[in-house]
Amino acid sequence: MYSSTNPPSLESNTRSAPEFRQDPVTGQWVVIAVDRAQRPQASIDAVADSNGDPNCPFCRGQEHETPPAVAVYPGDCPQGLPHDWQLRVVPNLYPALSRHGDPITAGETRESPILAHGWHEVVIESPDHLQRLTELPPDQVALVLQAYQDRFRVYAEDPMMRCAIAFKNCGRDAGMSLEHIHSQLVAFPFIPSVLAAELAGAEAFQARSGGCVYCHLAENEIRQQVRLVQQTDHFLAICPYASRVPFEIWVLPRDHQARFERLAANLRHELAHLLWDVLRRLEESLAHPAYNYVVHTCPFDTRSEDHYHWHFEIIPRIAHLAGLEWGTGVYVNIVSPEAAAHALRSA
Amino acid sequence: MYSSTNPPSLESNTRSAPEFRQDPVTGQWVVIAVDRAQRPQASIDAVADSNGDPNCPFCRGQEHETPPAVAVYPGDCPQGLPHDWQLRVVPNLYPALSRHGDPITAGETRESPILAHGWHEVVIESPDHLQRLTELPPDQVALVLQAYQDRFRVYAEDPMMRCAIAFKNCGRDAGMSLEHIHSQLVAFPFIPSVLAAELAGAEAFQARSGGCVYCHLAENEIRQQVRLVQQTDHFLAICPYASRVPFEIWVLPRDHQARFERLAANLRHELAHLLWDVLRRLEESLAHPAYNYVVHTCPFDTRSEDHYHWHFEIIPRIAHLAGLEWGTGVYVNIVSPEAAAHALRSA
Repeated sequence: MYSSTNPPSLESNTRSAPEFRQDPVTGQWVVIAVDRAQRPQASIDAVADSNGDPNCPFCRGQEHETPPAVAVYPGDCPQGLPHDWQLRVVPNLYPALSRHGDPITAGETRESPILAHGWHEVVIESPDHLQRLTELPPDQVALVLQAYQDRFRVYAEDPMMRCAIAFKNCGRDAGMSLEHIHSQLVAFPFIPSVLAAELAGAEAFQARSGGCVYCHLAENEIRQQVRLVQQTDHFLAICPYASRVPFEIWVLPRDHQARFERLAANLRHELAHLLWDVLRRLEESLAHPAYNYVVHTCPFDTRSEDHYHWHFEIIPRIAHLAGLEWGTGVYVNIVSPEAAAHALRSA
Repeated sequence: MYSSTNPPSLESNTRSAPEFRQDPVTGQWVVIAVDRAQRPQASIDAVADSNGDPNCPFCRGQEHETPPAVAVYPGDCPQGLPHDWQLRVVPNLYPALSRHGDPITAGETRESPILAHGWHEVVIESPDHLQRLTELPPDQVALVLQAYQDRFRVYAEDPMMRCAIAFKNCGRDAGMSLEHIHSQLVAFPFIPSVLAAELAGAEAFQARSGGCVYCHLAENEIRQQVRLVQQTDHFLAICPYASRVPFEIWVLPRDHQARFERLAANLRHELAHLLWDVLRRLEESLAHPAYNYVVHTCPFDTRSEDHYHWHFEIIPRIAHLAGLEWGTGVYVNIVSPEAAAHALRSA
């Protein structure tokens, strides 16, 4: 029987940096990253010990277990002790993309391997061994958002990078491998298909209607109220009209803003409180489900700025995708977003 | 806490036939099918009783538990007893698409709900309470393939339908809800995004190179041998170059053929044996993993016939998709297809 931790001899000859591969039919990008099979797998079932886990590489005091931090947000200890940090960003020890890859020419289709060039970093969201964003005070959530913004600005300086996303895997069913609270940042030298579809749709809407499709839908959802989960002065949370999975949630600014990294500090705090509240409602509604969230922001070039609009997508992972979704891309969702929003408002 | 079997009052007012919804940004199609929350959920963990399960609606003698069959392939009992069948095709009792939906105009983007018009049928692959295709004799697998072909031909006669796929969900992690061996057939009034991407890529390849991209890759894989799992006179099984998940496998004809439904009876038997053998190798390599397969065949109109090429895609479900895949569409695969094909050849 095949074991990924004991690969056949062929694999051991080819293990190395991650590779980009592009499907010769669809152009779909894939990363072959065999070293990631060696990642430690912590159990989500283990009871979290908020005083720290001696084996957890992300806990306070274990800083030597990760690659050196690329950004550290210090704690409030006036002496600045070495372990006094609130948040650290470190390179991913098992990266899906490597800082030493090959250049990609835009639009090129290649059948030979390309060393996957990009950034893949981990945001350690607390020195304490917590698991869920709702265990953090909302001010700490704001610091997490600030770290995303700061790193996005760094990636944008890399002339080979075209865009970046932030994402969180919460719970094993969502692909989490270490339980200590963290999220991840990735920068790509191409526009991935999901972002490309959003950009193309937003551009087509603007050509047709002269405005931003996200602004248009935000206005509609606030007026109709049926899919609205929560709103603040500057943001709203909705269950989107064509929700792919039960309790899918989008969080976006009410007014047009292309780049998440441009969000001002005072609005970052407002957003952090909203995000915290929405995740609490989700956890209460579905008994702490596994979920992913992703932050979509405008690519680094400026051509999409007037029609693209940053947003969070929160994807609860309570339903298994089936052959229909894999084979067609058509999602069958057994909970209407209207019912989900109603349940979330009541939570 | 929200429960899908006890939905909030809002839901009970809106429960009805499934609805198509199209994402206003990307055009992505979604089906909101709240009645599917009522599906029975059998346990894969229960030990299969090959003499039949008295509660299984798909077992011999329980034919009254399904909607009337739309196709029955009789057994070899000369008296033709009522329960003497080898394979039945029945409408899905909890359909994602309904025979009484709304027409869709090609290319139209609508924000208001559309009753999801289409076909959704179940192929009950044996009267016995088996779970895996490899438990069937290869001749019975050939009958399953024949049923797909026969139904595809029926759907093609419906002027509102544009294409169809067949798929199997094997194991709970693959979205299976009833363990009795079965697969499903769906016909759509639009071209779903996954098929559309393949058609567009195949058309672009033909414009560039004058041939069929699948013929080209079949020839390459047979020549290179490194990603080849198995071959017969007319078919090959490969781990595709840009495999999205560990042990992804494609099965396709070596010579150009756009439509699965045109496959001749003698080749159907050859294919059934190959499919059976490849699934056995997969089960042996990964200890009976959950998996999906999908059959992609040319849309019902003829314009893609010279560049599209039918194929099976087998997707083992041993890895959870994470936020990176959801947020970007870029798959990170920790097993190279070269290593997977090597393991499958050795199994």
